[in-house]
Amino acid sequence: MRAVLLSRGVEIMPEKRALITMTTDFGDADYFVGAMKGAIYSINPAVEIVDITHSIPPHDIYSAAFTLMCYYADFPRNTIHLVVVDPGVGSARRPIMVMTDEHNFIGPDNGVFSYIYQRVHVNRIVHFTTEHYFRQPVSGTFHGRDIFAPCAAYTSKLVDWRMMGEVISDPVRFNIPTPVVLSEELIRGTVLHVDRFGNLITNITRSELTDERVRSGARVRIGKHENLRVLTHFAEANQNELFAYVGSAGFLEIAVPRQSAARIAEGRRGVEVEVLIPGRT
Amino acid sequence: MRAVLLSRGVEIMPEKRALITMTTDFGDADYFVGAMKGAIYSINPAVEIVDITHSIPPHDIYSAAFTLMCYYADFPRNTIHLVVVDPGVGSARRPIMVMTDEHNFIGPDNGVFSYIYQRVHVNRIVHFTTEHYFRQPVSGTFHGRDIFAPCAAYTSKLVDWRMMGEVISDPVRFNIPTPVVLSEELIRGTVLHVDRFGNLITNITRSELTDERVRSGARVRIGKHENLRVLTHFAEANQNELFAYVGSAGFLEIAVPRQSAARIAEGRRGVEVEVLIPGRT
Amino acid sequence: MRAVLLSRGVEIMPEKRALITMTTDFGDADYFVGAMKGAIYSINPAVEIVDITHSIPPHDIYSAAFTLMCYYADFPRNTIHLVVVDPGVGSARRPIMVMTDEHNFIGPDNGVFSYIYQRVHVNRIVHFTTEHYFRQPVSGTFHGRDIFAPCAAYTSKLVDWRMMGEVISDPVRFNIPTPVVLSEELIRGTVLHVDRFGNLITNITRSELTDERVRSGARVRIGKHENLRVLTHFAEANQNELFAYVGSAGFLEIAVPRQSAARIAEGRRGVEVEVLIPGRT
Repeated sequence: MRAVLLSRGVEIMPEKRALITMTTDFGDADYFVGAMKGAIYSINPAVEIVDITHSIPPHDIYSAAFTLMCYYADFPRNTIHLVVVDPGVGSARRPIMVMTDEHNFIGPDNGVFSYIYQRVHVNRIVHFTTEHYFRQPVSGTFHGRDIFAPCAAYTSKLVDWRMMGEVISDPVRFNIPTPVVLSEELIRGTVLHVDRFGNLITNITRSELTDERVRSGARVRIGKHENLRVLTHFAEANQNELFAYVGSAGFLEIAVPRQSAARIAEGRRGVEVEVLIPGRT
Repeated sequence: MRAVLLSRGVEIMPEKRALITMTTDFGDADYFVGAMKGAIYSINPAVEIVDITHSIPPHDIYSAAFTLMCYYADFPRNTIHLVVVDPGVGSARRPIMVMTDEHNFIGPDNGVFSYIYQRVHVNRIVHFTTEHYFRQPVSGTFHGRDIFAPCAAYTSKLVDWRMMGEVISDPVRFNIPTPVVLSEELIRGTVLHVDRFGNLITNITRSELTDERVRSGARVRIGKHENLRVLTHFAEANQNELFAYVGSAGFLEIAVPRQSAARIAEGRRGVEVEVLIPGRT
Repeated sequence: MRAVLLSRGVEIMPEKRALITMTTDFGDADYFVGAMKGAIYSINPAVEIVDITHSIPPHDIYSAAFTLMCYYADFPRNTIHLVVVDPGVGSARRPIMVMTDEHNFIGPDNGVFSYIYQRVHVNRIVHFTTEHYFRQPVSGTFHGRDIFAPCAAYTSKLVDWRMMGEVISDPVRFNIPTPVVLSEELIRGTVLHVDRFGNLITNITRSELTDERVRSGARVRIGKHENLRVLTHFAEANQNELFAYVGSAGFLEIAVPRQSAARIAEGRRGVEVEVLIPGRT
């Protein structure tokens, strides 16, 4: 944002707008997203709300967690990432904020921040307990509007977290499947996510599939489909070729040019994927 | 928005941005929403446009009216709510603005504001007639871009409604089904809306289903499904249990944990729902 | 945007915000759109990002090109239109910016700007080559985040295009089917696009279907459906009537009131449409 220069030389630097991103499973056809946005703007009309997606499959915490992992780091420092996929709404599950050096994450304590815990140093996790900052009355079924949105809006107005809740140390986290290097010849992983194009995103990264292993002629297997080449980009693949590549999120992915690898390879979350590296003998 | 402090002590309080919310049935795949946003920004580049939903079922005025009712009140004072579900576009149906103390509502005069008329004191309803404020030429098929968006943008710039049209007193309103308390033992209502999760939202509120009646052991019937419990939140229900609760929009809803009540109970808009309260004898 | 008046009479006119519109085929369920928005805000937090659609059918350059044509002109001067439908990502296809007097267009050089080349005077086309302005490392599969979004953000900050790349003169353009006036009695065109409502948008405009020809009693044929009337708006049509009209994008369209003409007339992109004008004899 450029400064405004007054005739007398007084310079005003407008403050950076606070950003709140939104990922939910509320879909795009109901009032839920609108009510959350209204609750935010009512508290901080100057904030910028950024839609990421509202099409997380209903109640799919794993999909929300994976999606969050893939975009949060692209946002500027101090962005507030709001994630509301909340099958336990109204139960004892806690509304929390995960605070790191770069970003704050707000949502239910149901494991949706598991990848964040794994990847980033967490300064603290705050359990929102101060009802003063909630929309009243708090419904039993829509904490997105009544707790998460208001707490994100107050956080964007720099309300101190000490006012809003208490630090906890036992957040819920789900088990993230880790790839295994079984031998110099074999890496075993699983599909973490299937995207819109039907690309299969695995949990295998460059840490396991090193450049050296790729150069050695690594090949990939999924189900009965063997011997998949590891390429650099889509245009290298032949028509109808099932192939593998390290995708934009940093994971080994399996795709077919302009077709759905999920359909062709019957891939879905949890399916095993193996990388075979030819021996040097 | 925090004030900017100049070195000489002159304080500038940035004005609050005007907000325009958008609910349409234009879908998310065509140019319609983009053209409306462009028409708005061309007139008022400083406004904030807030997407609510563009996935109202095509031409479904009832769904749009219900959705609007559930989010408008969460927005700050002076928000402009634009609702374009307009099967009569190009005919004699009037483009209108409904002005209340808190908000302004802009859209076709086809009943889409029926719940607003029922719930809020309306100061006036303006029929937009001044072509000066329309995009020229006005097409016969896209008043969202040519009339509603420009009139919303000019309203956000505080153009006086007296310049833009004439007051009318005979807006179109549709019949909103009201629940009936048939006796101390029986309340009869209907399903108003089915949401993304398959929850069935009825027209029965706490006015009919009082806390006392709930405490008396009220049970709910929909179709052949009888004896549904009235609970406080989802986590209280058993797996596969069809149950009822007063939802976040203030209406009695019917749901199944993590499943679609609409599918299980064959529920849809207009289906009858009864609440039975045990006698005290 | 209204000016802010200081007590000493110094007036500050806030600068207009830069606008970046987004049209992609990334869908609404993945992290792609979020990562692009993050990449933009990280470079220019003051910009306004405007979602047009993320539901272009995967890899459908023709649909993206048509959609862009229908909304770009409604946006204010200096808007940056970002279009990422990019089946050739990672190959030799060039990332470009098409600069016109009114707008800048950023996306892959794959024909997606064909209608722009046809309709607007282009000042220059810049091939982005300066890696300094790319997100590093550039992935082989997601130039939306790594090249197009950053280049749009830097352009919105008024970085000179001379810093960012080189002028090219051989952009890729696809063949846009043109309607043919075969005789005073016969115009032949094709369907360019099918919208959400099932309306069929043809390439025939008022240039071919003049008002005089409409007054002469022009009738339209699609497939085995003959003798369609040319009307002014939907409300003139009878129930179930397949009819034609000049739509809001300036093209002859075929529709049925509140039904899908695409379904009824088996219409889709590329289908032939004829206009027959009765002879004056």
